[in-house]
Amino acid sequence: MLRGKQTWWFDKRPVIIGAATVVGPDEGDGPLAADFDLVHPELDMQQKSWEKAERLLMEQASDFALKHAKVNKQELSFYVGGDLMNQIISSTFAARSIGAPYLGVFGACSTSMESLALAAMIINSGSGQYALAGVCSHNCTAEKQFRYPTEYGSQKPPTAQYTVTGAGAAVLAPDGDGPVVECATIGKIVDLGIKDPFNMGAAMAPAAVDTIQAHFNDTGREPKDYDLIVTGDLATVGHGIAKDLLKRDGVPMEDTVFGDCGLMVYDVARQKVQAGGSGCGCSAVVTYGHLLKRLKQGDLKRILVVATGALLSPLSFQQGESIPCIAHAVAIEAKP
Amino acid sequence: MLRGKQTWWFDKRPVIIGAATVVGPDEGDGPLAADFDLVHPELDMQQKSWEKAERLLMEQASDFALKHAKVNKQELSFYVGGDLMNQIISSTFAARSIGAPYLGVFGACSTSMESLALAAMIINSGSGQYALAGVCSHNCTAEKQFRYPTEYGSQKPPTAQYTVTGAGAAVLAPDGDGPVVECATIGKIVDLGIKDPFNMGAAMAPAAVDTIQAHFNDTGREPKDYDLIVTGDLATVGHGIAKDLLKRDGVPMEDTVFGDCGLMVYDVARQKVQAGGSGCGCSAVVTYGHLLKRLKQGDLKRILVVATGALLSPLSFQQGESIPCIAHAVAIEAKP
Repeated sequence: MLRGKQTWWFDKRPVIIGAATVVGPDEGDGPLAADFDLVHPELDMQQKSWEKAERLLMEQASDFALKHAKVNKQELSFYVGGDLMNQIISSTFAARSIGAPYLGVFGACSTSMESLALAAMIINSGSGQYALAGVCSHNCTAEKQFRYPTEYGSQKPPTAQYTVTGAGAAVLAPDGDGPVVECATIGKIVDLGIKDPFNMGAAMAPAAVDTIQAHFNDTGREPKDYDLIVTGDLATVGHGIAKDLLKRDGVPMEDTVFGDCGLMVYDVARQKVQAGGSGCGCSAVVTYGHLLKRLKQGDLKRILVVATGALLSPLSFQQGESIPCIAHAVAIEAKP
Repeated sequence: MLRGKQTWWFDKRPVIIGAATVVGPDEGDGPLAADFDLVHPELDMQQKSWEKAERLLMEQASDFALKHAKVNKQELSFYVGGDLMNQIISSTFAARSIGAPYLGVFGACSTSMESLALAAMIINSGSGQYALAGVCSHNCTAEKQFRYPTEYGSQKPPTAQYTVTGAGAAVLAPDGDGPVVECATIGKIVDLGIKDPFNMGAAMAPAAVDTIQAHFNDTGREPKDYDLIVTGDLATVGHGIAKDLLKRDGVPMEDTVFGDCGLMVYDVARQKVQAGGSGCGCSAVVTYGHLLKRLKQGDLKRILVVATGALLSPLSFQQGESIPCIAHAVAIEAKP
């Protein structure tokens, strides 16, 4: 098997038997509000720090997901989680509450699908009965860590994106009711030399395209095999670039089929979110909140979620490095 | 399967067909010097920053490991990597050079065995031909990020540990010559309330004990089933505590069987390393450099590497949080 075959097939068809999402006020003000399990009216969620609020999001999303799956914490075999914080403290402290054996992962905003792919791999291998995949982000922890202190209220260019405050979690099992994880395409680093952290959509677009192409090559599928293909958080600028690149490469995407979670989670024209949403919570809350519901309702039959990640750090930026990007894609199918 | 079964069995017995280690001057001055593929005489490795030096370690260790495995970069199916840096930039930038589909992981110093366990899971599942597991750490990047600017030359209490400058990488394949990865026990978060980042050995010891106990429970094995059981980086203080806890729990360990990579990598009495080595490079260079060689020579038949991680961040410490700890264990056997 030569490189190029970067897709994992889950022949046992692991089932998402429960999922949940918990979000902040801006996401609750957006078009998908009705799809979330809990909307916090305030960004601080009555916690003493933004970081503690982010951790709470993850704990609550996990609790709801386990409840929906009718699985006790004690029955959970593994938790695969990650977030954007240094040393992924939100997931780790949530893992302390969850109590299950824990695998921390990091792929910036692509962590949502990285964790889902790994949880599906674990269940598919027969190594556990229930695996939880969950990620979170918080607008203020991300602003504070990656940009400026939140008190600054700093202005941003229109190419910048707005980190989603939200957590999403999914419980996977070898059988049960719910959508099925079919396969996952693990991305490679793509870095075309973009250095502007206020234009991460443009930086990430080529990585999304690379993974989508690899997915089609590996699986023999085409855009028409999916009812919906969504990128994680390319937002206005990046999603347009991805569409152009795919068209150039002979894979034209219809607007009805090709979406972006960063454009779905907010009313971009009305809400003050610059180019759209970002953060690993972005693709997680759209996928686990909105898209899984549409799969269950029969509105969608098969989707591909291509979560994109910009793998820079403030330090790598300060040292003049460009932004290495990645995208991981997971195909989810409604149970027939 | 109820919780408690936290061990993955690799029935296809993935083989470590090549491994390599690259270290800094202090490790080159230690008792295992002859086991490393490359010893850098200077900490900066002629790079412009400590971070670039750390990345170089990872790139070189990967190159050597692939060379030993007789695998081209282009043939590599997946790279599973991580490090201690914020947003794991060392691994990510190395992944850009390596070019293979990439899964970033974070478990602090336990990342060494987390990445090996996941790479073994991928190969065992038949999802790839060659998987690279690799981690790195650098004394000066860790000092700078977690403690004080390196220029300070700050003094430390004797319970503190010295971060290993080194990278270790292993190439796994479904068959070939080399030691075999038998199984992996994924750890849970254990946090007994210790808040002192200058005593991480004590914080991590209970996590090591929890995973060792889980491993014995899951597998039905006992200490005598292993020629050597090594913890990752508990060093003098933590290793003593782990031994006491295991004895209390009815699992006495002989000194000849129970070691610690943090005590093996340096001559702790002679070198100025406080309680001993730490960092995800610590267990990686001892395992991939020293222990694999002893397995190949027939000196050891079966070992258990229990990599320990202290999952704090400077921010979680500043916010008064205790240190959540974890340990992941991987059993490696010489091919009969």
